[in-house]
Amino acid sequence: MIVRPHQHWFRRLFVWHGSVLSKILFRLSLNLLMSAFAVICYQWYEALGVRLTTAPFSLLGVAIAIFLGFRNNASYARFTEARLLWGTLLITQRSLLRQIKSVFLHQPEQAKIFADLLTAFSWSLKHQLRQTDGNADLRRLVPAALAEEVQRSPDPTNRLLLCMGVWLGEQRQRGAVSDVIYEGMDRNLDQLARVLGGCERIANTPIPFAYSLILHRTVYLFCSLLPFALVEDLHYMTPLVSVFISYTFLSLESLAEELEHPFGMAANDLPLDAICNTIERNMREMNDQFPLPEKMLPDRHYTLT
Amino acid sequence: MIVRPHQHWFRRLFVWHGSVLSKILFRLSLNLLMSAFAVICYQWYEALGVRLTTAPFSLLGVAIAIFLGFRNNASYARFTEARLLWGTLLITQRSLLRQIKSVFLHQPEQAKIFADLLTAFSWSLKHQLRQTDGNADLRRLVPAALAEEVQRSPDPTNRLLLCMGVWLGEQRQRGAVSDVIYEGMDRNLDQLARVLGGCERIANTPIPFAYSLILHRTVYLFCSLLPFALVEDLHYMTPLVSVFISYTFLSLESLAEELEHPFGMAANDLPLDAICNTIERNMREMNDQFPLPEKMLPDRHYTLT
Amino acid sequence: MIVRPHQHWFRRLFVWHGSVLSKILFRLSLNLLMSAFAVICYQWYEALGVRLTTAPFSLLGVAIAIFLGFRNNASYARFTEARLLWGTLLITQRSLLRQIKSVFLHQPEQAKIFADLLTAFSWSLKHQLRQTDGNADLRRLVPAALAEEVQRSPDPTNRLLLCMGVWLGEQRQRGAVSDVIYEGMDRNLDQLARVLGGCERIANTPIPFAYSLILHRTVYLFCSLLPFALVEDLHYMTPLVSVFISYTFLSLESLAEELEHPFGMAANDLPLDAICNTIERNMREMNDQFPLPEKMLPDRHYTLT
Amino acid sequence: MIVRPHQHWFRRLFVWHGSVLSKILFRLSLNLLMSAFAVICYQWYEALGVRLTTAPFSLLGVAIAIFLGFRNNASYARFTEARLLWGTLLITQRSLLRQIKSVFLHQPEQAKIFADLLTAFSWSLKHQLRQTDGNADLRRLVPAALAEEVQRSPDPTNRLLLCMGVWLGEQRQRGAVSDVIYEGMDRNLDQLARVLGGCERIANTPIPFAYSLILHRTVYLFCSLLPFALVEDLHYMTPLVSVFISYTFLSLESLAEELEHPFGMAANDLPLDAICNTIERNMREMNDQFPLPEKMLPDRHYTLT
Amino acid sequence: MIVRPHQHWFRRLFVWHGSVLSKILFRLSLNLLMSAFAVICYQWYEALGVRLTTAPFSLLGVAIAIFLGFRNNASYARFTEARLLWGTLLITQRSLLRQIKSVFLHQPEQAKIFADLLTAFSWSLKHQLRQTDGNADLRRLVPAALAEEVQRSPDPTNRLLLCMGVWLGEQRQRGAVSDVIYEGMDRNLDQLARVLGGCERIANTPIPFAYSLILHRTVYLFCSLLPFALVEDLHYMTPLVSVFISYTFLSLESLAEELEHPFGMAANDLPLDAICNTIERNMREMNDQFPLPEKMLPDRHYTLT
Repeated sequence: MIVRPHQHWFRRLFVWHGSVLSKILFRLSLNLLMSAFAVICYQWYEALGVRLTTAPFSLLGVAIAIFLGFRNNASYARFTEARLLWGTLLITQRSLLRQIKSVFLHQPEQAKIFADLLTAFSWSLKHQLRQTDGNADLRRLVPAALAEEVQRSPDPTNRLLLCMGVWLGEQRQRGAVSDVIYEGMDRNLDQLARVLGGCERIANTPIPFAYSLILHRTVYLFCSLLPFALVEDLHYMTPLVSVFISYTFLSLESLAEELEHPFGMAANDLPLDAICNTIERNMREMNDQFPLPEKMLPDRHYTLT
Repeated sequence: MIVRPHQHWFRRLFVWHGSVLSKILFRLSLNLLMSAFAVICYQWYEALGVRLTTAPFSLLGVAIAIFLGFRNNASYARFTEARLLWGTLLITQRSLLRQIKSVFLHQPEQAKIFADLLTAFSWSLKHQLRQTDGNADLRRLVPAALAEEVQRSPDPTNRLLLCMGVWLGEQRQRGAVSDVIYEGMDRNLDQLARVLGGCERIANTPIPFAYSLILHRTVYLFCSLLPFALVEDLHYMTPLVSVFISYTFLSLESLAEELEHPFGMAANDLPLDAICNTIERNMREMNDQFPLPEKMLPDRHYTLT
Repeated sequence: MIVRPHQHWFRRLFVWHGSVLSKILFRLSLNLLMSAFAVICYQWYEALGVRLTTAPFSLLGVAIAIFLGFRNNASYARFTEARLLWGTLLITQRSLLRQIKSVFLHQPEQAKIFADLLTAFSWSLKHQLRQTDGNADLRRLVPAALAEEVQRSPDPTNRLLLCMGVWLGEQRQRGAVSDVIYEGMDRNLDQLARVLGGCERIANTPIPFAYSLILHRTVYLFCSLLPFALVEDLHYMTPLVSVFISYTFLSLESLAEELEHPFGMAANDLPLDAICNTIERNMREMNDQFPLPEKMLPDRHYTLT
Repeated sequence: MIVRPHQHWFRRLFVWHGSVLSKILFRLSLNLLMSAFAVICYQWYEALGVRLTTAPFSLLGVAIAIFLGFRNNASYARFTEARLLWGTLLITQRSLLRQIKSVFLHQPEQAKIFADLLTAFSWSLKHQLRQTDGNADLRRLVPAALAEEVQRSPDPTNRLLLCMGVWLGEQRQRGAVSDVIYEGMDRNLDQLARVLGGCERIANTPIPFAYSLILHRTVYLFCSLLPFALVEDLHYMTPLVSVFISYTFLSLESLAEELEHPFGMAANDLPLDAICNTIERNMREMNDQFPLPEKMLPDRHYTLT
Repeated sequence: MIVRPHQHWFRRLFVWHGSVLSKILFRLSLNLLMSAFAVICYQWYEALGVRLTTAPFSLLGVAIAIFLGFRNNASYARFTEARLLWGTLLITQRSLLRQIKSVFLHQPEQAKIFADLLTAFSWSLKHQLRQTDGNADLRRLVPAALAEEVQRSPDPTNRLLLCMGVWLGEQRQRGAVSDVIYEGMDRNLDQLARVLGGCERIANTPIPFAYSLILHRTVYLFCSLLPFALVEDLHYMTPLVSVFISYTFLSLESLAEELEHPFGMAANDLPLDAICNTIERNMREMNDQFPLPEKMLPDRHYTLT
């Protein structure tokens, strides 16, 4: 994610938005070439009997804009839901720890054990979603025996949740919490399960492939044909206007594709590292375990991973 | 569902998206013929007093695009909700099993019996939604007596849920769970009932038939008449532009129709087999019942059923 | 509701969608007449100094399409919510009966009494929403004394819910259910109250009247003036194009109006009879009360009431 | 709210929709004058070097239609949410009374006391939202001492809720309800608090003022300039088409403004009086306190307040 | 937030909406200059071979309007959600205090202590979101020891919530509240945690930066090029129409940017000070702690902070 300080409207016009621009720069150059080619070809239009006017492209352009609007909505909804789930994760972990601390008033050790499980859960979820190796983080946070059990499992994050459930069941069996209190905490474990399942759903089920494909193709073909239609009206102005229109359509299509997978490492994706860091700091701070791990800050490109 | 590895934007332009393309290919060919016919007819336009311009088609095209955008939204919302329900199914089954394991700490047998009931529930729901025969899966997972009772029922999936409720009621009666714990689990059974009912609702209530019909008809008529209007402006270019515009409208209309019924076997439908497989693997893994059934992977067309 | 078997795309073009088409057929004929009139008038345009071009109608047409899209959204949202409420009804009734059967494990009589109350509730809701007489269904399902009490009430459906609450309160007072179990069931009674109240809300509060009116009027006026604007460009083609555009706008406006009141008996409305029949079959099947009432099937026009 | 009987589509074209039409009638007349002025001015266009064509207005018109569509959505969402909140109010009050009657099986007096508190709550909310004096309704329903306490408070509706909470707490303290039952009822009191807070939120936070302002101004300026652009194409037809387009834009803008404040007394606002009346009738009917207050019916203009 | 009294439609046309207008005034002036420049340049168009027509700009304008509509939706959704969260805050605090007062019937001191914690929570949240110093408000409301503990924490608002949890745990341990009652209150503490986490999410995760950037840039470029395209059709009318179209696009883009960050101090942002003031007045009023702090009213520019 890019976290820019607020800038003057004018300076913002010239900001380099790398992630999207670099992806479409080549396509824009192609478009520029195409436009130049169209300008050159134009003199033979009549001889070839070729006639292309803007009217049908105007119709097509508006139709594509409407469908692209739909695709943007769908992608942005996935991004928003993913962010909401990670927000819920932080909220639920704070709530669980608050419950533990409020029930085990004079046993700070229990709260520390549980807080580490919670912290490990969020790091593990991050590693699962980004398909990176989470063993180091796991070993750092939970006892060796447990870490080994979790590592062996094909679903380590879900296994961690199961371990929290078992921990809670043991507390209940030894009478440390009553059934009512147990239920109240279990409800929050269900919430963690919902976050986990929701993230897996977003990661595993992309927007139906045909949508992306049809739009990707239609936008590209539209931008490629556009200069040949514009040339009659605009002549030498064709490259300018054609690249401008292409920029609008291509960049939004490209961004929609990026946001469709919000757990990746691209510039506009969610800063999962920073959220996990926040969770860890929160958990430790609530247990007064100082010093806290250092706060993750955006790098000099204002990017937060 | 199609699960493609990420591809370069250029290669993606030439990907074959069979499911939708094959359905509209014939219609696109008809459109091509129509365009050729329009080009030929054009010479007699004046003699026949026929005049067709793009202006009214432009208006109509934008209107149809807006309505098609609405239809796409509605179809995609059904697809998304169906996926959400199956996601909730996985989440709830994990949560229920976690509760059982946490409450029956030292009776792993109980957890195994219940896990099989849960697994059978999801396979049964899949068979019900796809109207296939679920007896083999049922017999594989639950005791013979129960399987027979369930098979006799006209609503086997709901009957399985009833059996879970009875199993839970028996545990409560014999004092194995207190009323409070019983309530906590019952709340998750309610959640399963919500998933079941939600899926039935999506399967049984299509988008009002008149919507599909009006749009299907309007889009088709629009694409058929379009070449006759374009020919005046574009002449020999008519087939190219006409097929392109038709492709945009027909493919989106066709995809919307496919997504309207997300439980089918078409290429863009939900991979219910794979989700059931995930659930079964999860249930067994949480009970440490190795070896797990093999993970279902996309076939060589990247399709997951 | 119309439940058609899946048809070939080509055959579907010629399907008769009676409910909407018959309503607008007269208006389309008027439009045809208007177009013919416009073609005849055209020769005097210059003499009369009349000039109408498509440009402003194009602007107006797109604006109306946008507003019609909004109206379609609003109407369809009402239809969807209504279906969701009836889906929730079925789900909640199954859940309640499952709870009863799981708690009163060896008292099947209690479950039968309660199931009849639930079935009566759904039939009563249907009769209330369609303003038909529900006495026959009521007497068929509940004891005479209760039926009489319910009939006397100005809100029979709500009174039935009150009776369920009292039945549950009695079970609690005589110690058959503990407070915790009572609460769990009461939560589902609340859910029934939500379904009842939600249906009443949809039935009693239409989309603000001015919306329907403004759009109804604007669409009609637009379609009536359109041929006079098209005639300059299209001449003899005016009737064809004008009727086509009118068909698109009028049929969608008419359908939106139909969906606005989803509890009616029109072809695209909800099949409340069939849903009540499903609920009754479910309730009896869960209690093993065979034979079940016959399943309601679409008639030969594929219509389900 | 206007509750019209269903009318023939043709008669509906000529219905007088006073609330909106009367507001924009003056503006439409101005527009007519402007059009006439444009027709007269047209002869000097060339001399003055003035040139206005429809093309840029077409672009602007579509853009404004899109933004107006957004504003309509936002206003309608407020209206819908407000209606939903009042629907929830009715539902929750029925549920609360059902709980009370089911728990205090043989103490109908308690139910009557509580029902009066609930009824007073809804009237008080209505008076608060419409900023009218609620003392008469309050004194009619609750004991004098309580009425006085409530009247003294700057937030009378919230105070009534507090009184219900205290009443419930007293029942709990004297052992009439167990903690579990208390919690179940308290959950519904929370629901009432949500309705109260939600209504206050809608009433106190309008759509950001700049939205209304920008659109109000843009729509007006657009309609005023439109005839000057249309006159070149349409000449004597300018007033007809210009007033028609203005009607579409102005009436929707005006309606959006009306729906933005759904608790007012305008024709399209919510019929709070009628809803309160329904609640009171429901509460009394559930307690068999006959005769019920008379049902509020629409007046002869089909208006319900 | 700006809270204007209702004004006549005509006077509203000339209202000064400072916050947005002042931001774009400079850009509009630039646009005016650009238009003048375009008018002057026009005479050399032919000599330079420059040709720019409105057709491609019309297509682009509609596409940008669609994307801007999407951006407005996204920004407004953030504003609405933020308002909803603060509404939930008020609701939950009232509910919590009602629960406390209803359970601790004869210990008004407890309710006062807790009400102060709640009030401090909302002021602290405000200070956190606006990054202002909350120490004064904190010391005013809670005991010195607690205030110091909270101030030391890097997450003071979350720490306050933790303190409430501990307070509640102590009440439970000393037997003042049963487990069931404890759970009911804890559920509302969870709700406060959800409000806190939701606000942090909105504050920390802007709309993906590339969206704002692409639109900001596209809108600006579009408005700058527009006069050069309009000049052929409109000649001396170019500045008028160009500034009008630019006003529509720039003001909406600028407003969307403002609403994206609803917790700021700009004119259209949420009046957090006033909401906190309302909460404090409510808390004190429910405890009959008169005199209440003075009600915050809009200043003479109708602005509420």
